[in-house]
Amino acid sequence: MASQNEVDDMIKRVQTSKGVQGIPIRTSMDNDTTLHYAALISQLIVHAKRVVREIDSSQELEQLRLRSYKHEIIVAPESKYIMIVIQVPEAV
Amino acid sequence: MASQNEVDDMIKRVQTSKGVQGIPIRTSMDNDTTLHYAALISQLIVHAKRVVREIDSSQELEQLRLRSYKHEIIVAPESKYIMIVIQVPEAV
Repeated sequence: MASQNEVDDMIKRVQTSKGVQGIPIRTSMDNDTTLHYAALISQLIVHAKRVVREIDSSQELEQLRLRSYKHEIIVAPESKYIMIVIQVPEAV
Repeated sequence: MASQNEVDDMIKRVQTSKGVQGIPIRTSMDNDTTLHYAALISQLIVHAKRVVREIDSSQELEQLRLRSYKHEIIVAPESKYIMIVIQVPEAV
Protein backbone atom coordinates (compact mmCIF):
# COMPACT_ATOMS: atom_id res chain seq x y z
CA MET A 1 0.00 0.00 0.00
CA ALA A 2 1.26 3.54 -0.81
CA SER A 3 2.29 5.60 2.21
CA GLN A 4 0.40 8.83 2.89
CA ASN A 5 3.42 10.84 1.63
CA GLU A 6 3.47 8.91 -1.63
CA VAL A 7 -0.24 9.54 -2.09
CA ASP A 8 0.22 13.26 -1.37
CA ASP A 9 3.12 13.44 -3.84
CA MET A 10 1.05 11.67 -6.45
CA ILE A 11 -1.88 14.07 -5.96
CA LYS A 12 0.43 17.11 -6.28
CA ARG A 13 2.03 15.72 -9.47
CA VAL A 14 -1.30 14.86 -11.13
CA GLN A 15 -2.77 18.25 -10.32
CA THR A 16 0.19 19.97 -11.98
CA SER A 17 -0.07 17.78 -15.12
CA LYS A 18 -1.40 19.82 -18.06
CA GLY A 19 -5.09 19.31 -18.84
CA VAL A 20 -5.68 16.76 -16.07
CA GLN A 21 -8.72 17.22 -13.90
CA GLY A 22 -9.01 15.12 -10.76
CA ILE A 23 -6.75 12.56 -9.14
CA PRO A 24 -6.44 8.79 -9.25
CA ILE A 25 -8.52 7.51 -6.33
CA ARG A 26 -7.80 3.80 -6.57
CA THR A 27 -5.22 1.82 -8.46
CA SER A 28 -3.64 -1.60 -8.66
CA MET A 29 -0.55 -0.19 -10.38
CA ASP A 30 2.43 1.75 -9.07
CA ASN A 31 2.07 5.51 -8.66
CA ASP A 32 4.09 6.60 -11.67
CA THR A 33 2.28 4.23 -14.04
CA THR A 34 -1.05 5.31 -12.58
CA LEU A 35 -0.20 8.98 -13.05
CA HIS A 36 0.99 8.37 -16.59
CA TYR A 37 -2.18 6.55 -17.63
CA ALA A 38 -4.45 9.00 -15.76
CA ALA A 39 -2.89 12.07 -17.39
CA LEU A 40 -2.87 10.64 -20.94
CA ILE A 41 -6.31 9.03 -20.86
CA SER A 42 -8.15 11.87 -19.14
CA GLN A 43 -7.04 14.20 -21.95
CA LEU A 44 -8.03 11.65 -24.63
CA ILE A 45 -11.47 11.26 -23.01
CA VAL A 46 -12.05 15.04 -23.19
CA HIS A 47 -11.27 14.82 -26.94
CA ALA A 48 -13.42 11.72 -27.49
CA LYS A 49 -16.38 13.25 -25.60
CA ARG A 50 -16.18 16.30 -27.84
CA VAL A 51 -16.16 14.13 -30.99
CA VAL A 52 -19.26 12.20 -29.89
CA ARG A 53 -21.10 15.42 -29.04
CA GLU A 54 -20.08 17.09 -32.32
CA ILE A 55 -21.39 14.10 -34.26
CA ASP A 56 -24.68 14.06 -32.32
CA SER A 57 -25.27 16.63 -29.58
CA SER A 58 -27.89 14.38 -27.98
CA GLN A 59 -25.28 11.70 -27.33
CA GLU A 60 -22.71 11.22 -24.59
CA LEU A 61 -19.61 9.04 -24.70
CA GLU A 62 -20.33 5.91 -22.66
CA GLN A 63 -17.19 3.92 -23.30
CA LEU A 64 -13.89 4.13 -25.16
CA ARG A 65 -11.73 1.15 -26.06
CA LEU A 66 -8.14 1.40 -27.24
CA ARG A 67 -6.75 -1.85 -28.59
CA SER A 68 -3.10 -2.46 -29.29
CA TYR A 69 -1.39 -5.84 -29.73
CA LYS A 70 -0.38 -6.12 -26.07
CA HIS A 71 -3.21 -4.27 -24.26
CA GLU A 72 -6.81 -3.29 -24.40
CA ILE A 73 -7.60 -0.14 -22.44
CA ILE A 74 -11.27 0.27 -21.58
CA VAL A 75 -12.36 3.66 -20.34
CA ALA A 76 -15.76 4.45 -18.84
CA PRO A 77 -16.25 8.17 -18.18
CA GLU A 78 -18.77 8.50 -15.37
CA SER A 79 -20.09 11.82 -14.08
CA LYS A 80 -17.73 12.06 -11.10
CA TYR A 81 -14.86 9.78 -12.09
CA ILE A 82 -13.25 7.95 -15.00
CA MET A 83 -12.79 4.20 -14.72
CA ILE A 84 -9.81 2.86 -16.64
CA VAL A 85 -9.31 -0.89 -17.05
CA ILE A 86 -6.17 -2.24 -18.71
CA GLN A 87 -6.47 -5.84 -19.79
CA VAL A 88 -4.36 -8.26 -21.77
CA PRO A 89 -6.52 -9.35 -24.73
CA GLU A 90 -5.51 -13.04 -24.71
CA ALA A 91 -6.17 -13.29 -20.97
CA VAL A 92 -9.89 -12.46 -21.46
CA MET B 1 -23.94 7.98 -56.47
CA ALA B 2 -22.12 11.33 -56.02
CA SER B 3 -21.40 13.26 -59.23
CA GLN B 4 -17.79 14.00 -60.09
CA ASN B 5 -18.30 17.66 -59.06
CA GLU B 6 -19.62 16.60 -55.68
CA VAL B 7 -16.64 14.32 -55.14
CA ASP B 8 -14.23 17.12 -56.16
CA ASP B 9 -15.97 19.53 -53.76
CA MET B 10 -15.78 16.97 -50.99
CA ILE B 11 -12.04 16.43 -51.57
CA LYS B 12 -11.37 20.18 -51.52
CA ARG B 13 -13.36 20.64 -48.29
CA VAL B 14 -11.68 17.73 -46.48
CA GLN B 15 -8.22 18.89 -47.49
CA THR B 16 -8.90 22.34 -46.04
CA SER B 17 -10.22 20.91 -42.75
CA LYS B 18 -7.71 21.51 -39.95
CA GLY B 19 -5.54 18.52 -39.04
CA VAL B 20 -7.10 16.17 -41.60
CA GLN B 21 -4.79 14.11 -43.74
CA GLY B 22 -6.25 12.22 -46.67
CA ILE B 23 -9.74 12.02 -48.15
CA PRO B 24 -12.71 9.69 -47.76
CA ILE B 25 -12.34 7.06 -50.50
CA ARG B 26 -15.54 5.11 -49.99
CA THR B 27 -18.67 5.81 -48.04
CA SER B 28 -22.24 4.69 -47.62
CA MET B 29 -23.25 8.05 -46.15
CA ASP B 30 -23.90 11.43 -47.71
CA ASN B 31 -20.92 13.67 -48.39
CA ASP B 32 -21.39 16.13 -45.55
CA THR B 33 -21.82 13.40 -42.94
CA THR B 34 -18.81 11.56 -44.37
CA LEU B 35 -16.68 14.70 -44.23
CA HIS B 36 -17.80 15.45 -40.69
CA TYR B 37 -16.94 11.99 -39.40
CA ALA B 38 -13.67 11.82 -41.38
CA ALA B 39 -12.43 15.17 -40.05
CA LEU B 40 -13.35 14.50 -36.41
CA ILE B 41 -12.21 10.89 -36.23
CA SER B 42 -8.93 11.31 -38.11
CA GLN B 43 -7.88 13.92 -35.53
CA LEU B 44 -8.99 11.68 -32.63
CA ILE B 45 -7.00 8.78 -34.09
CA VAL B 46 -3.83 10.92 -34.19
CA HIS B 47 -4.38 11.63 -30.47
CA ALA B 48 -5.17 8.00 -29.59
CA LYS B 49 -2.12 6.72 -31.48
CA ARG B 50 0.07 9.11 -29.52
CA VAL B 51 -1.43 7.91 -26.21
CA VAL B 52 -0.78 4.24 -27.04
CA ARG B 53 2.80 5.00 -28.09
CA GLU B 54 3.44 7.15 -24.98
CA ILE B 55 2.21 4.31 -22.77
CA ASP B 56 4.35 1.71 -24.57
CA SER B 57 6.54 2.80 -27.48
CA SER B 58 6.61 -0.77 -28.81
CA GLN B 59 2.85 -0.72 -29.33
CA GLU B 60 0.66 0.62 -32.11
CA LEU B 61 -3.04 1.44 -31.94
CA GLU B 62 -4.92 -1.37 -33.70
CA GLN B 63 -8.49 -0.36 -33.01
CA LEU B 64 -10.50 2.36 -31.28
CA ARG B 65 -14.13 1.99 -30.22
CA LEU B 66 -16.32 4.89 -29.19
CA ARG B 67 -19.61 3.83 -27.64
CA SER B 68 -22.51 6.16 -27.03
CA TYR B 69 -26.14 5.16 -26.38
CA LYS B 70 -27.16 5.42 -30.04
CA HIS B 71 -23.94 4.46 -31.88
CA GLU B 72 -20.78 2.48 -31.72
CA ILE B 73 -18.00 3.88 -33.87
CA ILE B 74 -15.24 1.39 -34.63
CA VAL B 75 -12.06 2.78 -36.10
CA ALA B 76 -9.23 0.69 -37.54
CA PRO B 77 -6.19 2.79 -38.48
CA GLU B 78 -4.34 0.94 -41.22
CA SER B 79 -1.06 2.12 -42.75
CA LYS B 80 -2.59 3.77 -45.81
CA TYR B 81 -6.17 4.40 -44.73
CA ILE B 82 -8.49 4.59 -41.74
CA MET B 83 -11.57 2.39 -41.72
CA ILE B 84 -14.51 3.82 -39.81
CA VAL B 85 -17.58 1.69 -39.11
CA ILE B 86 -20.65 3.21 -37.47
CA GLN B 87 -23.04 0.63 -36.08
CA VAL B 88 -26.17 0.71 -34.00
CA PRO B 89 -25.40 -1.36 -30.87
CA GLU B 90 -28.79 -3.12 -30.64
CA ALA B 91 -28.66 -4.08 -34.32
CA VAL B 92 -25.53 -6.21 -33.77
